[in-house]
Amino acid sequence: MKSPGNDAGRAGEHAIIGRILGRLPAAPASLVVGPGDDAAVWTPPRGSLQVLTTDALVEGVHFDWRFSSPADVGYKALAVNVSDVAAMGGAPHLALLSLMLPPEIPLDTVDGLMDGLLVLAAEARVTLAGGNITRTCGPMVIDMTVVGSARPRKLLRRDGAQPGDFIYVTGALGASAAGLDWLRSSVGTSHPGTEAGPGDPALAACVARYRRPGPRARVGALLGRNRAASACVDLSDGLADAVRQVAAASGTGALLDGSALPLHPGARAWFAAKGVDAVEAAAASDDYELLFTVPRRRLGRLRAVVREARGVVVTRIGEVTADGSLEIREGEGRRQLPSGYAHFTNTI
Amino acid sequence: MKSPGNDAGRAGEHAIIGRILGRLPAAPASLVVGPGDDAAVWTPPRGSLQVLTTDALVEGVHFDWRFSSPADVGYKALAVNVSDVAAMGGAPHLALLSLMLPPEIPLDTVDGLMDGLLVLAAEARVTLAGGNITRTCGPMVIDMTVVGSARPRKLLRRDGAQPGDFIYVTGALGASAAGLDWLRSSVGTSHPGTEAGPGDPALAACVARYRRPGPRARVGALLGRNRAASACVDLSDGLADAVRQVAAASGTGALLDGSALPLHPGARAWFAAKGVDAVEAAAASDDYELLFTVPRRRLGRLRAVVREARGVVVTRIGEVTADGSLEIREGEGRRQLPSGYAHFTNTI
Repeated sequence: MKSPGNDAGRAGEHAIIGRILGRLPAAPASLVVGPGDDAAVWTPPRGSLQVLTTDALVEGVHFDWRFSSPADVGYKALAVNVSDVAAMGGAPHLALLSLMLPPEIPLDTVDGLMDGLLVLAAEARVTLAGGNITRTCGPMVIDMTVVGSARPRKLLRRDGAQPGDFIYVTGALGASAAGLDWLRSSVGTSHPGTEAGPGDPALAACVARYRRPGPRARVGALLGRNRAASACVDLSDGLADAVRQVAAASGTGALLDGSALPLHPGARAWFAAKGVDAVEAAAASDDYELLFTVPRRRLGRLRAVVREARGVVVTRIGEVTADGSLEIREGEGRRQLPSGYAHFTNTI
Repeated sequence: MKSPGNDAGRAGEHAIIGRILGRLPAAPASLVVGPGDDAAVWTPPRGSLQVLTTDALVEGVHFDWRFSSPADVGYKALAVNVSDVAAMGGAPHLALLSLMLPPEIPLDTVDGLMDGLLVLAAEARVTLAGGNITRTCGPMVIDMTVVGSARPRKLLRRDGAQPGDFIYVTGALGASAAGLDWLRSSVGTSHPGTEAGPGDPALAACVARYRRPGPRARVGALLGRNRAASACVDLSDGLADAVRQVAAASGTGALLDGSALPLHPGARAWFAAKGVDAVEAAAASDDYELLFTVPRRRLGRLRAVVREARGVVVTRIGEVTADGSLEIREGEGRRQLPSGYAHFTNTI
């Protein structure tokens, strides 16, 4: 539907802003000044702490137009930030959108981006409060900042794990990686990535999870509110990295149970067919699930969280140890935790 | 001082983050969780509104390494955001830094960037609370979010101007544009841009203003606190655009006095020598000064602000009118306000 000249470069910054503002739902009364002034102004919940996070998606690094629609990218740009707020035990409230657009980008792409972003904003009750649009001579960038709140003493930091705490993870692992891998493998074949999906429903679920990683906003907020967890992080850089971060910050080790890692069925089949070790696949998984630790005396609180967060599966995958080692139990043996994901060395 | 392999791509994300964190000064007690967790956590001042803004600098669009040092770019990335908070009458508190680095960028560049950023952070009492670093396959991007606070009913919005209010501007106009113009003209000549400056001190001041636009944080906060101003914006998109924005938001017109526009002496001489009309030069000036309107009955409050903000010159440049026209008085005649700056059509 690209019409000639209907691109960001010709439309100009004010026109694009107008186009975006025209689509925003009514803002809550707490937003004193919305988009259009020098800055947004907001009344934070009384007596709360403020949770602040920023995360960017760069075209060619974090997304590929062959694999994701503009709406997928808009959804994911907000999701990765909502996930960070959830991992602190906070509730997200506001978002700022900083958009860097190549001049030739079609306005339809900006519309699609906003479609996806506003779907998740409505689900997660996040208000788009402001932002910035500028031209770039490079790849498109969607950088978002999300502001949330949490109650004092109900934060989920990464440094609170204690030896003996159990380690849990939400959802299923490896789905996102398997979905991306399928999309990569389908390039140049008969099924173009962003349209038809794989025939196998389990693998199709993996592709969907790669494109739109629903953040665990509710579980994170519940874990913070009832203080079930002693530490929490999201899996944005992979399970192995998450375990490593919690252990390093808490001054502990960790022992995972290789057979307990909840690999997504689609991912299990996909990686098995490719000869990829299941533990390696799980360790590298970056599904925007939450990894958290629970002291044994607080397992009752965890059960309450699981009851309230209907439908979200929570799996015990190991425990926090006193020494600094990071290991995975496999049958009778143990192996080192594989190394994690690094943004500067990995690609899409 | 670039040593082989000493670049962002080889160092990796964690190493760059460590390098940055090692240079941060001690954080105030209000920062509950600083950089290193999923999100930053902060205790906002009690009973305050929160002011939130985001602005990005893109290499090749907003800065050029031939004209600005890494420290200049770091300074400016924070300055443009502090300016937005000042234009709301707020005080800045926290910053989030989102950095997109091409793999080949030297680590020295990142260090320099932080040097400049931390100079202004110390001056403006802003704490770097968190952020994100990622790789890009395109130009370097420094995207910052600044969070500030303001008292309820003491905000400076852009929509509060009333016919009869006087229009003021801080500082001198056109310095930044003249400085950039000089730098452009010096490319390929004997004086490379980022080292020697122009011999003329007034023009050298323009180059300095282009490279490090000191935001009007104190004046903005004072104007908000004592409620002297009825509307305020910064000149980030030029004087003409600022006047247009205030008039449009307030449903008014504006009549500027062409002879009152405080063109910087260096800019006046530079543009006169090039045959550029002084009013055109002033109208296009994007010096991160503040433009604000003051009801006549509040001129006493404005005098108090000027007394407290020692050294900042404030100049009356016109008044708000009831009709929708935007004009400049020149001698006996009037002319239309020139059109403003647009990010999608202008370059560095």
